Amino acid sequence: MAQYPKYVYLNGEITTAKDAKISVFDRGFLFGDGIYEVMVQINGRFFFGNAHLERLATCLKKTNINFDMATLSEKINMHLKAAQLESEDCLLYIQVTRGVAPRKHSFPKEITPTLMMYAVPFSLPDINKTPVSVVSQNDFRWHRCDIKMTSLLGNVMANDFAIQNGHYEAVFHRDGKMTEGSHSNLFFVKDGVVFTHPADEHILNGITREIVLKICRTHNIPFCEEGVPFKEVDSMDEAFLTGTSTQIAAIKKFDDHSFFAGNIPGEVTQNIQRLFSELKKLPQQSLEN
Amino acid sequence: MAQYPKYVYLNGEITTAKDAKISVFDRGFLFGDGIYEVMVQINGRFFFGNAHLERLATCLKKTNINFDMATLSEKINMHLKAAQLESEDCLLYIQVTRGVAPRKHSFPKEITPTLMMYAVPFSLPDINKTPVSVVSQNDFRWHRCDIKMTSLLGNVMANDFAIQNGHYEAVFHRDGKMTEGSHSNLFFVKDGVVFTHPADEHILNGITREIVLKICRTHNIPFCEEGVPFKEVDSMDEAFLTGTSTQIAAIKKFDDHSFFAGNIPGEVTQNIQRLFSELKKLPQQSLEN
Repeated sequence: MAQYPKYVYLNGEITTAKDAKISVFDRGFLFGDGIYEVMVQINGRFFFGNAHLERLATCLKKTNINFDMATLSEKINMHLKAAQLESEDCLLYIQVTRGVAPRKHSFPKEITPTLMMYAVPFSLPDINKTPVSVVSQNDFRWHRCDIKMTSLLGNVMANDFAIQNGHYEAVFHRDGKMTEGSHSNLFFVKDGVVFTHPADEHILNGITREIVLKICRTHNIPFCEEGVPFKEVDSMDEAFLTGTSTQIAAIKKFDDHSFFAGNIPGEVTQNIQRLFSELKKLPQQSLEN
Repeated sequence: MAQYPKYVYLNGEITTAKDAKISVFDRGFLFGDGIYEVMVQINGRFFFGNAHLERLATCLKKTNINFDMATLSEKINMHLKAAQLESEDCLLYIQVTRGVAPRKHSFPKEITPTLMMYAVPFSLPDINKTPVSVVSQNDFRWHRCDIKMTSLLGNVMANDFAIQNGHYEAVFHRDGKMTEGSHSNLFFVKDGVVFTHPADEHILNGITREIVLKICRTHNIPFCEEGVPFKEVDSMDEAFLTGTSTQIAAIKKFDDHSFFAGNIPGEVTQNIQRLFSELKKLPQQSLEN
């Protein structure tokens, strides 16, 4: 169950969750005009923290939000300290919106971005041992899924449909090709080769997605950044989801198709799960080889 | 220039614009999980007010937001009274979000929707005499544009691009057909026939769009709900935008193509503008014939 954090950082102030309030004229509220990041701290360090912050910077650029990244790490540390989660395993949510202004579609000239963040205690298992069920949907979202934005109505509608129907996640296909999940990336395995949609404008290039590709490169696991045809999903050998809190979750059932019986995922998925788990124990983590 | 209202209605309370604050855990802020309406009061009555409220109800249904419409009119009246705009010409903005909950994609079971509204003094000219310039863009928004939602990052990015480049509006084409503007509907005229994209999931069925079609029906102006091919825009005789505050605005320039010189729009546009202006003076307005 999702829970409120004890404390929230909002534009330099730290308050309780209950007192954390923004103007109704924040463009994040009026227009979904904002971006976000979610990252996890493990053993006192953010897991691929730099990669997350770099993506945040990229998304700010793509949306022309004029936010100063220079002091963000400092602010994160300050907040974790205040929230007494400085060295705890936790999940950090960061949201930056364009800021507060009278309602008008175009971007106001003089505007100060809103920074909101919070952390909640959160422990990831070494390996995500829970196989998941997914349901497919036509990808009705916009065509700039590479931007990690807060205009997420499409994603939450799709995810809610999945949850209401007893699935963990909704996965999308666009123009006949599998793209990604509503809050995860999607992988398939066929004859030992790992497949995932290329990081173009139709998917969010997940940090965990990038880590999996890095694992493939490092360990000579053949992979191919190509969208698997929706019609060929049943002929795949394995499938899994990736995400910051999902980590690597084996897909047991995809619509009516079962990838495996019992609780034992395919070999390649298990191998990548194990290698991912090893990576978490390393002192230095970077997407560069 | 957009301005803050004096007062804001928020969940039963009326405050100043400065004090109108919502929780950062409002799903309107976290996910753009909300819908909205904009309507104008003319001579003490909302222009096609019922049509606007019906669309709000439809959008609540489409998004599964469990909001009680029964007392909304009463709340609107109460707010207008408090804001001393009861019988003034004004623009009313209404936003309903799914409500406040810890962050999780799927819809929380027990949740109270957030209702926010405000009114600002606003006078519409009888006829919008300002011809506008528009710039075309590939429609990169989602595929449920029939929902008047607050997840508007795509729309505001497109609109800002238009404004930065000296245009009034961005107009979209999808799969080769003209759809609509970032906050308006789009019409063309060719050989006396009025063309506009059908009200499917790729456009928001604007109330002013519906009024124009009603005018066409009533006055035997031939019309066709069909998307005009992007490639054929230059061969059209006239073009105009419609919207609640735009009313009917003649398009003078579309990308590099000029529809007319000087400030005199085409005959059909002028005729519809005049008939629209007449409609505003009637005591009863309904989309039904």
